Amino acid sequence: MTSISIIGSGKMSSAIAEVATRAGASIQIIRRSTSSSSGDRPNVTYGALGDELTGDLVVLAVPYNAYPSILEFYRERLRDKVVVDISNPIDFTTYDELKSPADSSTAAELAKQLPEGAEVVKAFNVNLGDTLTAGTNGTTTTTVLFAGDYAEAKIAVADLIEASGMRAVDVGPLSRARELEAMGFLQIVLSALGKTRNESGFTLLQ
Amino acid sequence: MTSISIIGSGKMSSAIAEVATRAGASIQIIRRSTSSSSGDRPNVTYGALGDELTGDLVVLAVPYNAYPSILEFYRERLRDKVVVDISNPIDFTTYDELKSPADSSTAAELAKQLPEGAEVVKAFNVNLGDTLTAGTNGTTTTTVLFAGDYAEAKIAVADLIEASGMRAVDVGPLSRARELEAMGFLQIVLSALGKTRNESGFTLLQ
Repeated sequence: MTSISIIGSGKMSSAIAEVATRAGASIQIIRRSTSSSSGDRPNVTYGALGDELTGDLVVLAVPYNAYPSILEFYRERLRDKVVVDISNPIDFTTYDELKSPADSSTAAELAKQLPEGAEVVKAFNVNLGDTLTAGTNGTTTTTVLFAGDYAEAKIAVADLIEASGMRAVDVGPLSRARELEAMGFLQIVLSALGKTRNESGFTLLQ
Repeated sequence: MTSISIIGSGKMSSAIAEVATRAGASIQIIRRSTSSSSGDRPNVTYGALGDELTGDLVVLAVPYNAYPSILEFYRERLRDKVVVDISNPIDFTTYDELKSPADSSTAAELAKQLPEGAEVVKAFNVNLGDTLTAGTNGTTTTTVLFAGDYAEAKIAVADLIEASGMRAVDVGPLSRARELEAMGFLQIVLSALGKTRNESGFTLLQ
């Protein structure tokens, strides 16, 4: 069975926990504080920042600008993990540009900072949270686009997605994260403009 | 009534001619040679490279690397036209990168080269030709994403799209062409990998 650690406790953390629940995965959520909250899931083990990561898959469900502080705690402990980068590094003051280098991506920059053995997969960044929670995008099954350089890591992510009842589409090597981040940015802009609902958005039709 | 000149005679030229036909537009197609062919449309006026452009909208339906030779003929004559850039400047030897500058787009680079008065709109580059010809993407109405800096130019393009029975979605200023080109690139890669059919592809669900 897949095991997953989700670092972060915002909307995307919750959406991915729901995906992992549908997939029957063993789930850990790492948050700032250990205190329980009324929204806690019975099937999730909660931990605090700095606690050991129990999942083989580790999802960074925090804003891009929180990556440095997460890496302070976990850089070495991400060795031999599949690290899932879901970020859309948008400048939210202007909604007019990505903060990642124009010829790169958050995912590729993250990969450079991790120890050997950590395998980065870009995934879920072109999905608004509600489409993951529901498993549907408009009237279709939610499609999750992902990219990465390591076959086994990609299979693990695809298995999680498909076990949760969604469709997984491999778009290629981690260098394609640049295009996934452009798409994620565009979708968030369209969402902010009211041109897509929270329950729908971009998809790849069959 | 809208009038449109389409420069180029390949698959996208034909697809956009079909869109313009459905929209009831007056259509001119500019091609290398004036000789007629069996596929000629009765509702289209054909011209040769160098002939006057009769359309208010001018679609560059040629590969990106043919732009310099088109501009030799037409740069000055694009003044006061709405210039529609549909290109996906992919390196087709590797399918691994865009040829436009990483922090810009074909559309933005084109705009810099045109005389004042020419108004560039990026459109149709995230649509595989068959989805324009049919007006459908999978089981949905085809959605055309477009970007530009001039309101009237964008309205003219949106009117053409909607009069043809498709859905037009304004994604913002011409700087968003960078993201549209990333999306177009990704779609062509997925199409080449057999992960989308010619009759479907990316869309924005409602």
